[in-house]
Amino acid sequence: MLHKYKNTTTNYYICAVMEKLLSKINNPIDLRKLPKNQLPQLAKELRDFIIDIVSKKEGHLGASLGVVELTIALHYVFNTPEDILVWDVGHQAYGHKILTERRDNFHTNRELNGISGFPKRSESIYDSFGVGHSSTSISAALGMALASQLKGAMDKQHIAVIGDASIASGMAFEGLNHAGVTDANLLVILNDNAIGIDPSIGALKEYLTAVKAGKNPKQNNIIKSLNFDYSGPIDGHDLPKLILELERLKSVKGPKFLHVITTKGKGLQLAEEDQVKYHAPGKFDAETGKIHPKDESHLPPKFQDVFGHTLVELAKQNEKIIGITPAMPSGSSMKYMMEIFPQRAFDVGIAEQHAVTLAAGLATQGMIVFCNVYSTFLQRAYDQVIHDVALQNLPVIFCLDRAGLVGEDGATHHGVFDIAYLNCIPNMIIAAPKDEIELRNIMFTAAEGLHHPIAIRYPRGRGENTNWKQPFEKIEIGKIKELKKGTKVAILSTGTIGNNVTKALAQIENESLFSHYHLPFIKPLDIDYIKTIINTHNHIITIEDGAIIGGFGEQISKINASYNLKKTIINLGIPDSFIEHGTVFELQELCQIDTKSLTYLFKTFTHD
Amino acid sequence: MLHKYKNTTTNYYICAVMEKLLSKINNPIDLRKLPKNQLPQLAKELRDFIIDIVSKKEGHLGASLGVVELTIALHYVFNTPEDILVWDVGHQAYGHKILTERRDNFHTNRELNGISGFPKRSESIYDSFGVGHSSTSISAALGMALASQLKGAMDKQHIAVIGDASIASGMAFEGLNHAGVTDANLLVILNDNAIGIDPSIGALKEYLTAVKAGKNPKQNNIIKSLNFDYSGPIDGHDLPKLILELERLKSVKGPKFLHVITTKGKGLQLAEEDQVKYHAPGKFDAETGKIHPKDESHLPPKFQDVFGHTLVELAKQNEKIIGITPAMPSGSSMKYMMEIFPQRAFDVGIAEQHAVTLAAGLATQGMIVFCNVYSTFLQRAYDQVIHDVALQNLPVIFCLDRAGLVGEDGATHHGVFDIAYLNCIPNMIIAAPKDEIELRNIMFTAAEGLHHPIAIRYPRGRGENTNWKQPFEKIEIGKIKELKKGTKVAILSTGTIGNNVTKALAQIENESLFSHYHLPFIKPLDIDYIKTIINTHNHIITIEDGAIIGGFGEQISKINASYNLKKTIINLGIPDSFIEHGTVFELQELCQIDTKSLTYLFKTFTHD
Repeated sequence: MLHKYKNTTTNYYICAVMEKLLSKINNPIDLRKLPKNQLPQLAKELRDFIIDIVSKKEGHLGASLGVVELTIALHYVFNTPEDILVWDVGHQAYGHKILTERRDNFHTNRELNGISGFPKRSESIYDSFGVGHSSTSISAALGMALASQLKGAMDKQHIAVIGDASIASGMAFEGLNHAGVTDANLLVILNDNAIGIDPSIGALKEYLTAVKAGKNPKQNNIIKSLNFDYSGPIDGHDLPKLILELERLKSVKGPKFLHVITTKGKGLQLAEEDQVKYHAPGKFDAETGKIHPKDESHLPPKFQDVFGHTLVELAKQNEKIIGITPAMPSGSSMKYMMEIFPQRAFDVGIAEQHAVTLAAGLATQGMIVFCNVYSTFLQRAYDQVIHDVALQNLPVIFCLDRAGLVGEDGATHHGVFDIAYLNCIPNMIIAAPKDEIELRNIMFTAAEGLHHPIAIRYPRGRGENTNWKQPFEKIEIGKIKELKKGTKVAILSTGTIGNNVTKALAQIENESLFSHYHLPFIKPLDIDYIKTIINTHNHIITIEDGAIIGGFGEQISKINASYNLKKTIINLGIPDSFIEHGTVFELQELCQIDTKSLTYLFKTFTHD
Repeated sequence: MLHKYKNTTTNYYICAVMEKLLSKINNPIDLRKLPKNQLPQLAKELRDFIIDIVSKKEGHLGASLGVVELTIALHYVFNTPEDILVWDVGHQAYGHKILTERRDNFHTNRELNGISGFPKRSESIYDSFGVGHSSTSISAALGMALASQLKGAMDKQHIAVIGDASIASGMAFEGLNHAGVTDANLLVILNDNAIGIDPSIGALKEYLTAVKAGKNPKQNNIIKSLNFDYSGPIDGHDLPKLILELERLKSVKGPKFLHVITTKGKGLQLAEEDQVKYHAPGKFDAETGKIHPKDESHLPPKFQDVFGHTLVELAKQNEKIIGITPAMPSGSSMKYMMEIFPQRAFDVGIAEQHAVTLAAGLATQGMIVFCNVYSTFLQRAYDQVIHDVALQNLPVIFCLDRAGLVGEDGATHHGVFDIAYLNCIPNMIIAAPKDEIELRNIMFTAAEGLHHPIAIRYPRGRGENTNWKQPFEKIEIGKIKELKKGTKVAILSTGTIGNNVTKALAQIENESLFSHYHLPFIKPLDIDYIKTIINTHNHIITIEDGAIIGGFGEQISKINASYNLKKTIINLGIPDSFIEHGTVFELQELCQIDTKSLTYLFKTFTHD
């Protein structure tokens, strides 16, 4: 299933920066024909190419700049794709994509029908394993290495490139722990730049810092203790050294570990200086690195900032309030609380499992814990939500950032399963505010003290209200809001997708036929009220920006069938397939939950 | 919410073994009044008490015998429950329960309305954190310790007791990694007996073994490298030494780590010699330790053994077949494949996340991977199922052992959420065979090669067919089986709970009114056939041994509403609450999905 790439024949981006070496490299076979002394020039061209395109088309910049030399060295020394290369997370794989047959499509990065921002098996034989969530590379590469062993391919190498933030996640440790008792041909390369999206944290990070500084005389004992053949640390921007070391490791059998020191954002001064901002800087000047200034003061705020500032407001009023983020202080805006109450806000690193159970432990002691996890990453802590929080009915407040379609990050990152996977859990309250003011009020209500855990889901990006900072109001749990009363068709929506319904209804002539109900709470449901809604309309439509299967819409269908209400119900939401990357608007269109599709659907009810 | 304990006033178990010391100890306050020189005698009595009751009432034996001295020492030295003690997993907490106000109820262990087999917050103030799944203790205790810091309780201690199998799980590493950069009063005690339920595996285990043997001159560097104050290893059966060391640690601030060596099953010779069998040996002779022989040859086999033997049969025919178990070779019967094909069957330890992504890695190389995970433990690898397997549409075969109600292990272990959490995942096939023969045939069909991942769910314990080893037959994916054709009421069931339907229908006079359809596949659904079923009956009943919310029954209700079929549908299954412990039969009764409840329900349809 290959993507239909956009036509690229006349693409000016490429013409602008293509110089003689990179323009001849279509794949690693071409690369390996270059003499070693030309590789530094290629590195320069590759870095410029990445900077040029990302400056105009946006994307993840810093990580890929940091591994330009490593990427070249790996494809130069190893016989990819026969030797298998797995990039952890994949933020850093732009150079890899450009060198593996996607140079001329790279300008379509993260666009609908363009190439994915992450390695993806269906896109290229060089993308051995799809990534996006962190810390999977060691397990995946080990599986490949064990398969090669069983097939008798004893010289084949399997390489996982993993960052220092990702290797501190539990899953990576599980992979190392298993690999260390095998004799599989696994090479783990630690790309140590001391930062993930935000600076790395944790005891392992402090240890690695000591190793780098030469303070640990025996070098990396932790890794050696796990039976790995450890080498390094070496300078990840020194191509000759990298190549020499990789050539040596190529013929070493069994599990090996190479510690490489790199600089995130390498080669673009501002990106080196502000690594957090330049992780994904948006559009910038390719020459100077300066980010194009935007006046956004007139725009409604991001939900993330509403969360972050509201949490600080609440925390000022109640010293029992605690914040937890697994490695997303900037992305979630937990950073505001970390700045003002550093003792009460914890960045625990890429450790969602720990984050949730830590929250449970704090909650047993009466703390009011706001545990902010991206919807897609809470999948990593599903058992902890069930077993440590809900089963004990601890009133942890989960803030599920980036719920629904997230846009350009694509299939790995959409937060579309949370309604289904949380709704089956006893004791859970699930909330989905329609706007920033409701988000604030649900947070306020939760902070006042609930007797159950609650998950509050809200999307990536901006809301619709500039005037969001209203005084707090307590919200009744489970209460359904009648936004509009009509005669024939009842539309039930939850979350911000309800705004599309409002806009669509504004386009309809016979809009008096339509009722619109907003459900700020997916669980619990006010069954009596829903029965009344169903009974008093001829047609029912439900809409949510989550999977239809297991979604709130099916709960409405179930009430219809349980109580013999005999109405036809249309459930709108995310269909039963993985949704690719594109703008949120384009993806809503694909799922037919955008304003235009809704308008079209609603109009069909005005004819009969 | 305290349990209503069974009346215990005339309980002979207690009278039989109660000797003078233990009979006076109702709680740790009593314990601390004893002089130190009486503690070894108390340890003997406590061990005898555990052996005596577990020999008659069954339960987890070995782990608790191994920590008798440690349990006494902890409650003796620390001021529990003010100082907080968290037992990881909780298999080892029987001594703790007996010393903390539950001696006289201990004979109700694991029984309906009796005490839980695991620590449980609602049961006792001494049970600071509910456990059952492994590796949560460090995160939970750290949360408590951070809360104490914020409250200014700087002398309070927080202790996590964790085994060597559990500490090798990624989540435990995440907890250590965070704790090491705090100055919280956390004491991690490694209860190192070199075994979980099955022998521990992994590089960390080998490392710990070397530490114990004195082969590592600097002792436990891994732990020291993570900023812990490390002490040990010390003999966990030497009470004076334990007490001395705990007294020293009591006044040490910050994160501390004590490495304690124990013997699982300590004090019962046969249990020490066969630690796997005596993890939970069933009834045995309290004097000799001999397990009461049972002639079970006439009984239908356990589903686990059908899985294990069938996998070996399939693996003999196809060398691409691989088995993976995260630490459950005995429980899942993966041990059979591990014995015959040790190169192709992997016990990866308590590492569900790694297990699933390792399976994905193997599958990319064309291997046919049977990844056997208990339903409740697959919650630990939910993200990996979505992100690494389903999104890439890799045909991994998940065998979900212990799906549905598991009985005496209770709320932490029921496998009742899997249908809901898997059904929303695109590309997944979900199967629930009705009997052993169908399990075999679905495994056979999956091994022949599907183009999607599949999850096959089956229950704990025995099936109903002694004659299960039939020649393999390929099964059509999604095909619904009409077991019985009737006129009025259609019953749709999935999985083994359908056998209750069959039995209930046999009790009904007008059984010709009832149709019974078995759905071996929850996903995909044959929608046309289901529409026909709904259209041709007046009443529809669905039944499953999983959560009703998000279950297959709601998919039937949704089809009813989507296609305007206007029937009333009753969805039976697990209600929206956590189900406690008891026999499977008792719990089915509670959920009204036992044969008697079904008979009663079905009869109501014969009256109108």
